[in-house]
Amino acid sequence: MGTTQLESVQEPKYWHLKTVLSEALDSDFAVGEILPNERDLAARFGVARATLRQALEQLELEGRLQRRRGVGTTVAPPRVGVAVATAQHEWAGGAVGEAWQPVDCGSEAAPSAVAAMLGTGTEPVHVVRRIRDTHGQAVAAELLYVPASSVPDLSAIDAPSGTVRARAVLRELHRLGLEGQDRSVELGSARADDAKELDRLPGAPVLVVTTRYFAEGGTAAVSIATYRADTCRLTFGDSGALEISHDGQQERQAS
Amino acid sequence: MGTTQLESVQEPKYWHLKTVLSEALDSDFAVGEILPNERDLAARFGVARATLRQALEQLELEGRLQRRRGVGTTVAPPRVGVAVATAQHEWAGGAVGEAWQPVDCGSEAAPSAVAAMLGTGTEPVHVVRRIRDTHGQAVAAELLYVPASSVPDLSAIDAPSGTVRARAVLRELHRLGLEGQDRSVELGSARADDAKELDRLPGAPVLVVTTRYFAEGGTAAVSIATYRADTCRLTFGDSGALEISHDGQQERQAS
Repeated sequence: MGTTQLESVQEPKYWHLKTVLSEALDSDFAVGEILPNERDLAARFGVARATLRQALEQLELEGRLQRRRGVGTTVAPPRVGVAVATAQHEWAGGAVGEAWQPVDCGSEAAPSAVAAMLGTGTEPVHVVRRIRDTHGQAVAAELLYVPASSVPDLSAIDAPSGTVRARAVLRELHRLGLEGQDRSVELGSARADDAKELDRLPGAPVLVVTTRYFAEGGTAAVSIATYRADTCRLTFGDSGALEISHDGQQERQAS
Repeated sequence: MGTTQLESVQEPKYWHLKTVLSEALDSDFAVGEILPNERDLAARFGVARATLRQALEQLELEGRLQRRRGVGTTVAPPRVGVAVATAQHEWAGGAVGEAWQPVDCGSEAAPSAVAAMLGTGTEPVHVVRRIRDTHGQAVAAELLYVPASSVPDLSAIDAPSGTVRARAVLRELHRLGLEGQDRSVELGSARADDAKELDRLPGAPVLVVTTRYFAEGGTAAVSIATYRADTCRLTFGDSGALEISHDGQQERQAS
């Protein structure tokens, strides 16, 4: 194959190799196929192993390759579109067929950034832990911070923790009229507990979605959700009904 | 300092080191300060250099550290919130004081995934290149793909390329009544040309925002925007007016 000449841009060797490898993945490998080991690959493409490793890292960032413990490096399937926001003013996971499964609930002081948004200081808040499944795979782990003031009637509930408690907090929370929400997305690395839920190594790249829910003139809850960056594309539909799919066709979302 | 015992979660050594380092950054270092070299750091924390390097990579993913060519590893300032979506139906960068600066315009076949969304196949489309500046720093580079059918009156314009052409395409595009947009966010690695604009090395982690603009019952344009993942937090305001800031205060956005 020819070498692309870029006059104005200096291309490092691993970058060129990445392009070549990417084409090889398209033509010579199937989804799920295990790549040859690094020594063989380096020899095949006539590069140093350090260069090869950098190129493999790029392809992993782009979601083309997956490194799996005990398996090796495999060709990744296309990323799955995961709807994060809908234009409707609704509590996430509040609808029937909810994607989020509550797994636990505790009570502790929120991290300082969250406490500042909630205005709770060091006062303990309810912390609901939820997991989001898509096609039977955990794609996100969430900590939802709910101040006691958002769920004043919760005291009637007995369960001190666990999913029963989590569902009770969510039920009380959803009684509030949601006035709006805002959201940020940033790159992060998976905490050890999230990594375990998501079947990743601690420190794996993740997309961290922070959502602030507004009700009754204030911040009623804050969610910190950690999405697998290797397998997920976060989608934000204007109408809540359309999303971008990889093959360019419009898909109806059951959101 | 004590060692945290996590019964159920196995914590790799680099992960524990990352936590210790993160605390050291808070207490012993100022924003912009250059870290000691790897050998000294490894000795200071009593770890192998490979372990140190993994921990530094985690902190870079989290936006705590920046690796800069010719400078070394420095303590990063807090990430900047960059508003990506507003609820208003408006063309991005269409308003006065627009954040996006057009830099060039060409005509070529869109990449296959974009062509599929636009339904243009191998037919050439207008490709407007724009850069987004925030506080004088380039935070994103965009390719905006506009089919000829979206800008039928463009033929009257003389300039074959460059910013004049780019502005003409945008002006014609903005004449269309925007009916909606959808958006996806995923992790990617910076292409060589984007990396140069963003002052990053090719392959650096980036957040890729794909936006599809709907007008006149179809897809009128597709934008592929590459945001620096190290310095940016992408914000999605429900009202277009509120965003989450790091210190928890609500900020009015001039969007």
